[in-house]
Amino acid sequence: MEKIIVRYGEIGTKSKQTRKRFEEFLAKSIRKLLQKYDIHPDVSILHTRLLVEVNKEDFEKTLELLKKVPGISSFSPCIECKLDIGNIVKIAKKVVKDELKSIDKDEITFAVKTQRVQKYFPLTSPEINSIVGEKIMGAFGLKVDLKNPDILVEIEVLKDKAFVFTKRIEGIGGLPVGTQGNVLVLMSDGIDSSVATYLMVRRGCNATLLHLKLSEDGLKKVRNLAEILSDYDCDLRFVVKDFKDELKDIKEKLEKLNKEEYTCIFCKRTMLKIAEKYAKDLGCDAIVTGDNLGQVASQTLKNLRAISEGTELPILRPLIGMDKNEIIEIAKKIGTFEVSTSKEIRCFAVPKYPITKADIEKIREIERKLKNIK
Amino acid sequence: MEKIIVRYGEIGTKSKQTRKRFEEFLAKSIRKLLQKYDIHPDVSILHTRLLVEVNKEDFEKTLELLKKVPGISSFSPCIECKLDIGNIVKIAKKVVKDELKSIDKDEITFAVKTQRVQKYFPLTSPEINSIVGEKIMGAFGLKVDLKNPDILVEIEVLKDKAFVFTKRIEGIGGLPVGTQGNVLVLMSDGIDSSVATYLMVRRGCNATLLHLKLSEDGLKKVRNLAEILSDYDCDLRFVVKDFKDELKDIKEKLEKLNKEEYTCIFCKRTMLKIAEKYAKDLGCDAIVTGDNLGQVASQTLKNLRAISEGTELPILRPLIGMDKNEIIEIAKKIGTFEVSTSKEIRCFAVPKYPITKADIEKIREIERKLKNIK
Repeated sequence: MEKIIVRYGEIGTKSKQTRKRFEEFLAKSIRKLLQKYDIHPDVSILHTRLLVEVNKEDFEKTLELLKKVPGISSFSPCIECKLDIGNIVKIAKKVVKDELKSIDKDEITFAVKTQRVQKYFPLTSPEINSIVGEKIMGAFGLKVDLKNPDILVEIEVLKDKAFVFTKRIEGIGGLPVGTQGNVLVLMSDGIDSSVATYLMVRRGCNATLLHLKLSEDGLKKVRNLAEILSDYDCDLRFVVKDFKDELKDIKEKLEKLNKEEYTCIFCKRTMLKIAEKYAKDLGCDAIVTGDNLGQVASQTLKNLRAISEGTELPILRPLIGMDKNEIIEIAKKIGTFEVSTSKEIRCFAVPKYPITKADIEKIREIERKLKNIK
Repeated sequence: MEKIIVRYGEIGTKSKQTRKRFEEFLAKSIRKLLQKYDIHPDVSILHTRLLVEVNKEDFEKTLELLKKVPGISSFSPCIECKLDIGNIVKIAKKVVKDELKSIDKDEITFAVKTQRVQKYFPLTSPEINSIVGEKIMGAFGLKVDLKNPDILVEIEVLKDKAFVFTKRIEGIGGLPVGTQGNVLVLMSDGIDSSVATYLMVRRGCNATLLHLKLSEDGLKKVRNLAEILSDYDCDLRFVVKDFKDELKDIKEKLEKLNKEEYTCIFCKRTMLKIAEKYAKDLGCDAIVTGDNLGQVASQTLKNLRAISEGTELPILRPLIGMDKNEIIEIAKKIGTFEVSTSKEIRCFAVPKYPITKADIEKIREIERKLKNIK
């Protein structure tokens, strides 16, 4: 079995009880994602670490998948060894020997860095560094470079074992999925709502995607996006409701009132009301949108207010302070960018000149009038 | 006069009319910030570029300050030259000569990269590259390396002049302050609300900071933070309201009801109500908070809901999808981290075990009871 030691970030700062709960959620997330890809790992919770063990043939895929699990700050393929300095030296030498095979250089430098995650072992970290370092120098004739070594041998010492490794692979950070409750995402086929979903899932939320369908093409794209996002939240739920007739109706009524420019406002206002109903039915405590500020002319503060008025659940807009290029960068990283931009689907209802600064009193007045149109 | 050419990002994608408005806001921001530091620049709007001219003695400080102006994607100290290939060559050679002084290396490589921002000049970009490149080779005997040159000479060609430069300094991006309207920020002395302010200002909002004061020490920190943030939004407003007695009152009443665990919820609920009143009075269209998810046990979705219920203006929470280390990184970058962490001020009213999952019905019930306590 190949072993991978997994570290988490913010969870470490919480109370013992919360930490235990978080570790269990994290272990569960890892298992679920790997099982989705037919990998059946042993996942054990150590002291502020998790240990993942998989078969050799699943090793590479496992490394790739661990980069998608919220809550993991970093992980390292490692060799486990008994807590005995002779044994640690032996393993460290083996690890260096393996590393040397892939370095083509005249003068190779190294360093040893020990962390005693638990403090039972009698030797201190500097003592371990010095003993292991000397033996490596003796065996391979390498020079020490503490600042920028070619090979960094790391040793993490726990209560009854140690782990030796040379690589730290970065995780996506965040909190384990499921620890922060349920959110409902208003999900479109564009770039933004997928990134918003990812950010809230990464912060530990379970996501329910609600797609208000306007076209088959749009739905197809959203299905693909949901599939990609369900790697980050394996329990992701996906709900579709047809919205075409409703939007047609809004558009026609506004035309009758000569207020086409308000179509997008009333479309989104209606969407949020539907979202709220679904959220409450499905046990979600907040609504998530991909709202941004100033990306297009109609994304103004006044329009945001006009759209969200009357929604009782909190509306979370994780992209509200971000630049478009930052959003695109995340979309590329999480693998949704290509699908989102694959085929632009234009909404049939967008008016020529959408209102950019909706006045809230005006909105209320139009809403009253809309109700009286048959 | 030293010249600096300034580029903007997202504004470029907008309609001609919007772009013009954005350019004017950007020029105004640059002027205001520099004037705050007693630098009096000439700022002119060129085609999709701005040109900033300052005295030699103000040059370094100007470069530093331009890194703080929302809306700037990058800028370059440059030499302006007449649109004439002989002249461009002359300036390019001068620029290379200056660069060579600071490079200590045997074999120095270079490349020339031209962009015709406007397309009036008869020579194409590749033609300019090739002519200028040859002359530089001839004059200094340098080798061309298009991929990774030691010296990259860039030429931007406008309608009636060109700019030659070798450095691109990154700006903070975003949109010019003032283009996106006013927000009211609930401002504390901690790390989060300063970062939230910065992110919304960077997206083009004018910020009004409302500090609900609990102590003199807290106010002092917030004043310092406001001073730092006012470099990003030179029109930043700062409002202080004493909140200590009100919070004491909330605390005492909850103790009478034996519901101390709800103190933080009712404190924040009250804060938001006050913020909304100020926001409306001061012409702000949204409230901004530093709310995060799961940072501490009480930052749950259910608590967010309990806190924000009944607020009519949209509440923007730009940090809601971010990790603590990402927030800290921004705080360090914008210069607020040190002040925010300089002296921890504990709130006198925090109960021993704050409620972590406030039930909304329960909150409403307690609120009714609170109203009946004298």
